[in-house]
Order: sequence, then structure tokens, then C-alpha cells
Amino acid sequence: MSILVVGSVALDTVKTPFASCKDVLGGSATYFSVSASFFEPNVNLVGIVGSDFPSKYINLLKARKIDLKGLIIKKGKTFRWEGEYGWDFSNPDTIATELNVLSQFNPVIPREYRNSEYVFLANIDPEIQKKVLNQMARPKLVACDTMNYWIENKRKDLVKLLKEVDIFLLNESEIKELAGEVSLVKAARAILKLGPKKIIVKKGEHGSLLFSGNSVFSTPAYLMESIFDPTGAGDTFAGGVIGYLAACKSRNQTNLRRAIVYGSVMATFAVEDFSLRRLARIRKADVARRFKEFRKLTCF
Amino acid sequence: MSILVVGSVALDTVKTPFASCKDVLGGSATYFSVSASFFEPNVNLVGIVGSDFPSKYINLLKARKIDLKGLIIKKGKTFRWEGEYGWDFSNPDTIATELNVLSQFNPVIPREYRNSEYVFLANIDPEIQKKVLNQMARPKLVACDTMNYWIENKRKDLVKLLKEVDIFLLNESEIKELAGEVSLVKAARAILKLGPKKIIVKKGEHGSLLFSGNSVFSTPAYLMESIFDPTGAGDTFAGGVIGYLAACKSRNQTNLRRAIVYGSVMATFAVEDFSLRRLARIRKADVARRFKEFRKLTCF
Repeated sequence: MSILVVGSVALDTVKTPFASCKDVLGGSATYFSVSASFFEPNVNLVGIVGSDFPSKYINLLKARKIDLKGLIIKKGKTFRWEGEYGWDFSNPDTIATELNVLSQFNPVIPREYRNSEYVFLANIDPEIQKKVLNQMARPKLVACDTMNYWIENKRKDLVKLLKEVDIFLLNESEIKELAGEVSLVKAARAILKLGPKKIIVKKGEHGSLLFSGNSVFSTPAYLMESIFDPTGAGDTFAGGVIGYLAACKSRNQTNLRRAIVYGSVMATFAVEDFSLRRLARIRKADVARRFKEFRKLTCF
Repeated sequence: MSILVVGSVALDTVKTPFASCKDVLGGSATYFSVSASFFEPNVNLVGIVGSDFPSKYINLLKARKIDLKGLIIKKGKTFRWEGEYGWDFSNPDTIATELNVLSQFNPVIPREYRNSEYVFLANIDPEIQKKVLNQMARPKLVACDTMNYWIENKRKDLVKLLKEVDIFLLNESEIKELAGEVSLVKAARAILKLGPKKIIVKKGEHGSLLFSGNSVFSTPAYLMESIFDPTGAGDTFAGGVIGYLAACKSRNQTNLRRAIVYGSVMATFAVEDFSLRRLARIRKADVARRFKEFRKLTCF
């Protein structure tokens, strides 16, 4: 199976109460692809960077065997995001967003990628997410992410897109906002009616939920002694989920649940250091070990 | 096995965004004892009420076979609490607290209760909690709850009490405050050093955690479509935990984990209506059914 991810590749500047870093590798497509590459060797990335994008970051992605034919290097500056976290490490304050070359992002999917069976539309304009889908042959599974900005400003495009989505990933406040519902269960039920076959609600340190048909799966997060930097945790989670599913023969309920646990496991590595520093260092055995610990943590 | 609970018996006035009720049965000892009675038939309650305490509430407790020899009926008014919940149903605003006869509460444990093997010291002044313990013969298990007020105003007494406690139950913000730690894991490790053999951290809709030695158990909450009134959920949870443990032959890790899930299950019934209305109506089979659903919700 092969996976296509379309999203941002960024240079992040992050400040936490304990440390800070400047212009480090970030972006939804980056975190997703590195995470997915632990499960499925064929990961195709479509994104855009500027001519200032450091070659060491290209090498980091190549070391994970991610196919970069779809990564356009355009004259100009790479997309930059600057954020700051408070003590509770929940939503960061965005200090600055410089779109730079990302403002010209109109993804053309390379011919070799159009047969990718698994597609992840990372958090970008739902209109662009739809354009990507239109270029694909016949994906087996389409997953997408979004954010409050698109819910508020591109609701119609998002709702249209959802009809073609198999797995819709979003966080708790986003699904409540999209559904106009304070009850999470009612919100999920309402959004399932819009088309997505499954919904995964990301609750950060409180775990995640999978809604599909009448079945619900709820899992806590892996217990971390401390968090270093939560940036990219959501996309790393998605990479684990879709990567694991792509590597599975069947997409049954058991595999879906395990996929979510693998997603949670991958996210724990993302938050243990700035950028993809930790993710770039771990091995498959580390993932397997933490999955086992996760089971020990939660079984009763 | 027999269980002793010492705590408040109250008349609550509660307002939620959807409904309100006045002077209904409440109190930590009440919720705890009714919940525990689903697992262990010998539940002894020590508390105090005023001469205005409605006999229908006495009958409700008697219907659950709770032993009320330790419930003192004193001339005067019953302890009253008035609270209001916002849309997120987290911490309520306390509108009024009338201690009334509770201000004279100096629990004398009836001779017949002094051999109770399981003791739950509900959230009262840690000095009084200690006085209760001093009257007990040799309990097999001592569990206690507390609140931010005692952490801030009676820290010394609380810390002294903890040396004699087997299971310390408290919520996330309380354990962080007591330990002066933002990391939950570090906070739990620090508090375990103060004496309690096990710590259960209640996270409400986000589930709960059990810390014991080097082992940790984490579970999400049962998924509720909506919450009617969360008052008493924590004490109902504790009643399920201690009730189940008292009914078990061994207090091993498996039983401890199941006890926590049973506690969570009991709490779901508490929040489905005002006061103990729902808890008074359910049967053992309802508890068993929801435990099974809980397993289905969380297994992977």
C-alpha cells in the first residue's frame, strides 16, 4: 500500500516555559509522513518549501525513505509559524504566521502518486483538499484533518469534502463547534450524518475517541511524566493511525482501535523534544515497546 | 466484610443550565454508602442530620440496607449546600453553604462499627478523619478523600493522616496543588512518598488514574451522551471502588483496576438525574451491563 499526504512543510519557532527553538523543521505533512513511515514504507509527500529550506531537513525526510517528488522547492521563503505554550501545554498562542511560498500552494499530484491507496489531507483549505481528491484515481481510504479557522470561514467547502471522507480527524472543541453541540456524543452523531464513515476525536492528554456507526472506542493517552513540546502531536498521531491501517490487511474494528493506540504512541515521541528530533531517532522496536506499555497501562 | 463511611449527609439545592432542584438528598456519606451497597451488604454510615431531615430519605437509605445506627439526628437544621453548574458541568459555583448541625459533628463510632474492615473517610476536616481512625480496631483498608480547602488550611493534619491511608482519592487539581507540581506523574510520585499506598486521581469526564508503587492504570470515563447533574459523582465513584474491593477476596492489581472501572460505572448513574434518584432505582444487573459496555468501549 502507498500513502499520500498533502499538507504543510514549515519552519517553526517555538517557545515553552522551559526552552525555545528557532526555525526548526515542522509542518503537518512532515510530522505525518515521518510517523507513517514507521508502519508503511511507501509514503509520498506533496508540499511546498522555499529556497531557504535547509538541506539537512530534506535529508531527515529522505532518511525515513519518504518520497519527495511532490515537494516543490520554490524561490522565496518557507512557510513559518511561531508559537508559545503556557504551563498547561494546551493551545499555543500563535505569535506569527508567515505564509510565504505556502500562499501559492496549488498542489498538483505527481502522476506516480495518483494511485496511492491511502490519502491524508492534512489541515489546509478544504477547497484545496477537494482539489487534491479530484486528482486521485480511486483511493481505498481518505482521511482528513481541519481546524476552527476552516470551520468558521469555509464551512460549506468542508461539509462538501466530508461526503468523500472515510476518516475525519479533529479535536474536541472543533467537532463541537462544527456541530453546534455541547455534547460530544451528539456532535459526533451529527457529523457522521454529513458523510465521514468514521470520526476520530483527538483530546490531547485526555486521549482520543473513535466513532463509527454505532460503535465507540475510547482510550486515554499514554501517561507522560512531562511534555517538552506538543507541536505536531496531532499530525504525528494521524500518521500512526493511517500508517498502521495501510500496513494492515483488513480495516476491521480491532485494527482501527489498534491504529488509534499506535497513533497515540507515535504522538508521545513527538512531544518529547522540539521538532522531529525524537521521532528521527527512534526505531520500530521503541514503538513496539511503548505499544506494549500502553496495553499494560490500560488493561483491566 | 463491612464498610464504614464517615462523612456528610446533606440537603442539596442544585441548578444546572437545564433544570434545578431544592433540598434534595445529598452528601458524601450518602452517595458513597448507596453506591457501595451494590457490592457489599454491610455498609455502616456515620453522619449527622437535623430534625428537619425528611423521613423519606431515611427510608431510601434503609431500602439499600445501609446501617444507620451511626446517623445522629440532632435538634436543628440539616447541613445544606447550594450550587450552580455552567455549560461544561465542571466545578460548580457554590452559592451557599449552611453547616447547621454539621458544625457540631464530632463523630463517635458506635462500638458495633469499630471492627469494620474497610473505612472510607469522606471529605471532612483531616483532624476529624484522624479522630475516626483512632477509634477503629484494625481496619484492613483505609481510604480517604479531601478537597482544596483542607490542602490550603489543614495541610499538616492532612499529611499526618496520609501516613495511615491505603487509598487516597482526589482530583487532578488537588493532587497538583498538594504536591506543588504541574506534572501529574511527578505529583503522584511525591504524594506516594507521604504514605498512602495507592492514589486514585479522579479526572471526571476524562477518566481516572491509579498510582501504586511503580504501576499505573489509566482509564477513560464511560461515555455519556449527556450529564444531568454531576453532584456526588466523586463519592459515588469511591463507593463503587471500595464496595467492589470489600467484596473481593484479594486486593491484587486486577481487582484494583476493576474496582476503578466499577467506580466509574456507578458514577455514571449518579450523574443521570438529580440527587440519588437514579442510583435508588437501578439494580445490580444494570451495573453489570454497564461494566460490560465499559469493556466494549475501551478494549483494543
